[in-house]
Amino acid sequence: MLFHNQAEENTLSPLGGVKNFRLTVYNLHARREALSETKALASYVVSNRYEDMPADVIHEAKRALLNFVGCAIGGSREPAVETAIRALDPFSGERTASLLARRERFDPLYASVINGISGHVFEYDDTTPMNYIHPTPPVASALFAYASANRVSGREFLHAFLMGFEVESRIGNAVYPAHYNAGWHITATAGVFGAAAAIGKLFRLSTQEMIWAFGLAATQASGLREMFGSMAKSFHAGHAARNGYLSAVLAKSGFTAGVHGIEGARGFAPVVASQYDLSKITAGLGEDFQIRYNTYKPYPCGIVVQPTIDGCIDIHREYKPAPDGIRAVRVRVAPLVLDLCNKRDITQGLDSKYSIYHAAALGLVRGKAGILEFTDEAVNDPAIKHVRGRVTPIADPSITEDQSDIEVELANGNVLHHFVECSLGNLKKPLSDRQLEEKFRDQSGPQADVIRLCWNLDQLENVSELVSATWS
Amino acid sequence: MLFHNQAEENTLSPLGGVKNFRLTVYNLHARREALSETKALASYVVSNRYEDMPADVIHEAKRALLNFVGCAIGGSREPAVETAIRALDPFSGERTASLLARRERFDPLYASVINGISGHVFEYDDTTPMNYIHPTPPVASALFAYASANRVSGREFLHAFLMGFEVESRIGNAVYPAHYNAGWHITATAGVFGAAAAIGKLFRLSTQEMIWAFGLAATQASGLREMFGSMAKSFHAGHAARNGYLSAVLAKSGFTAGVHGIEGARGFAPVVASQYDLSKITAGLGEDFQIRYNTYKPYPCGIVVQPTIDGCIDIHREYKPAPDGIRAVRVRVAPLVLDLCNKRDITQGLDSKYSIYHAAALGLVRGKAGILEFTDEAVNDPAIKHVRGRVTPIADPSITEDQSDIEVELANGNVLHHFVECSLGNLKKPLSDRQLEEKFRDQSGPQADVIRLCWNLDQLENVSELVSATWS
Repeated sequence: MLFHNQAEENTLSPLGGVKNFRLTVYNLHARREALSETKALASYVVSNRYEDMPADVIHEAKRALLNFVGCAIGGSREPAVETAIRALDPFSGERTASLLARRERFDPLYASVINGISGHVFEYDDTTPMNYIHPTPPVASALFAYASANRVSGREFLHAFLMGFEVESRIGNAVYPAHYNAGWHITATAGVFGAAAAIGKLFRLSTQEMIWAFGLAATQASGLREMFGSMAKSFHAGHAARNGYLSAVLAKSGFTAGVHGIEGARGFAPVVASQYDLSKITAGLGEDFQIRYNTYKPYPCGIVVQPTIDGCIDIHREYKPAPDGIRAVRVRVAPLVLDLCNKRDITQGLDSKYSIYHAAALGLVRGKAGILEFTDEAVNDPAIKHVRGRVTPIADPSITEDQSDIEVELANGNVLHHFVECSLGNLKKPLSDRQLEEKFRDQSGPQADVIRLCWNLDQLENVSELVSATWS
Repeated sequence: MLFHNQAEENTLSPLGGVKNFRLTVYNLHARREALSETKALASYVVSNRYEDMPADVIHEAKRALLNFVGCAIGGSREPAVETAIRALDPFSGERTASLLARRERFDPLYASVINGISGHVFEYDDTTPMNYIHPTPPVASALFAYASANRVSGREFLHAFLMGFEVESRIGNAVYPAHYNAGWHITATAGVFGAAAAIGKLFRLSTQEMIWAFGLAATQASGLREMFGSMAKSFHAGHAARNGYLSAVLAKSGFTAGVHGIEGARGFAPVVASQYDLSKITAGLGEDFQIRYNTYKPYPCGIVVQPTIDGCIDIHREYKPAPDGIRAVRVRVAPLVLDLCNKRDITQGLDSKYSIYHAAALGLVRGKAGILEFTDEAVNDPAIKHVRGRVTPIADPSITEDQSDIEVELANGNVLHHFVECSLGNLKKPLSDRQLEEKFRDQSGPQADVIRLCWNLDQLENVSELVSATWS
């Protein structure tokens, strides 16, 4: 059931006389009442029990949280985090909450903001490939802030997280791809619903209150892709976490909102997407868990350049071409790659995460793509710079988003060719639990305690224990 | 120069080979650099001086602020305000700021939120008819919060207010009407830029910082018309005020944002409007002051029902028809009226502000439309209820939005007819300064001190004097 934007608008301003008009409006109300996706999601979240979660889904939640905590530790000293802490500190309310990986204290709403920036700034977070949401940061940032200030058991935490993940993913599915293509940062715009659902679950909101929380989330949903490459991008995850949390706070106090926040004619889906499919919000709810489609990036950069990195690392391992012997690098990639990651003349680490040129160059030159490969130092490394200048990306609709076709032309005239059929970390080739741990250690150091606490989350009596373990 | 959404997208994913692709992208960058509306607005705000403001513009600013302060006093005891204060209180940072018309103290960001709710909840605020923004609440809510906590002279305050007003109005003009028609609450989405400009001006941001502030405002712009009729609607004004203020705070600390927040391919205008005209942002900047187009509602309800109220009050004064002698009321109105204010079966005061049925009934029954006519009591008044049930609105494209054609059919068979050519309060028939004072007194009581301080704002050494005058 695919709705085109404005379709309902037309029925709202007919010129054909009063009787017809009234009938139209009444029918519309009836349809909405019957099919309120906002209400369906709210009822699901409110009535759901931990026992309804299958074991594999619980395990996926632990994987997502382990990965997120690693990202937050790794990102926690970035300038975006330091700057936000300095700017927001004077506005903090009672400092009842702790941050992930930092010892400053904030009120839980600002702690949500900072956790979100830490967890998203490295671009190392999880991704659901059917909607390009980074699903964990908005939900988990709010939850860890709450759990650092209030006693929450590991099971309650996992359950609230799964509710938030499901809500955010399904709303994202409904508006993707039109919404994302228009320029919205869907992690932020869908994420705010996830944070509202998760915190609302811990607050034990009633269905009516949860409906208001979703309405308040809808009306705060924001975040533009124009911010990519600046600090404002990582702010989006924190902004969504904080606004979702705030939505639950307001709803719990009886602050009312429109009850058709998602599907209403001027609600989220019709306003932010030229095409959308509301059936994706409810189809298979409670059975087809969206976290089963979650993936983890092996490299801390835009996900669409990762097949190219894979291939260039392979070429490096196989042939070790000398950087100054590389005459040209031609990379055939899915058109979306150039849409998202076409930053060519870069000078800063932050920009390098969205550069197909840099992606190819670092793989060929260094044969790895860890955090150090996306620093200012790496961007200005003469060898990488040299190769970057030789890279020519070619948009090719026959190449899928997890593929890359790479040709390296050497000074001696030889051409090295490599086709990546399926990149590491995607749904068909997922990171194992051990690979996730390795990735965790790469960004955050050994931290064996934190890894253990994540795997044992369902046994924890108080999740604040995990938060404080990230400080060491 | 009218851009269609996605027009630039196409040039970003051509399939015609690499050389063509590169040329396209470089041209695009060049065009953007030359025509950056974000930068043009930022430079204007940063370099502008109080002395650049003509006397009539200063006077219009005082009128807008007098009207806003009256709205905030009048609205300050509404359930939306009480509920928000209760919900937000535990999260307040250091309580350095005061509220308008209430003695609670908050940090300046939450004070901005509460001021915005108080100022907007009565639907009595100002309107710029070319874009349907209620322009003063988002800007003034942030400014009064700031000025209650920091020493700001009346001139600095007026100047910052005018900068915010200009920025918000021009961005609104650029995206109206497509943006509003899509379902965005433009007061919120454009208002956040106004608050950022105003607070940024008081912070003495550099042009670069102001550009970041506008980017951060763009990426927080939100607010859906689906919330109309709930508390969330008045929250929008406070949310915009707070987020604009926060944008200036973050930018001042060096938190970076995309520099094409308004005009970039994934910036505000292309993302939130299917059609937009960026030339409206800069044309006549510094000469054609947008506050000269500001208008004031005589009645606290949706502006589009006001011509109908005017006409029904006229009929009441002329004929005094007995409510139970009214058999039918036919109101021919602009189609937008039914789009915005078609609430028929209402039971609460809040809903009544968007009801063409209620608008006609209260004018005919009571002959006035003050705050008391939009309460729960008025909605359930048997006489008003009776007449409301007899009202039939008819969308007629030949009727403009400040007109209404009213026919009242009486039980004795007589038909009273009245055509309202131009409603009170619109640009062609503005409220005088004295009428604005009367309106102020209607909602907030005598408060002679506050009225005097507003008219003398340019003489005030410290605007906090005006804030504290609203408490009595």
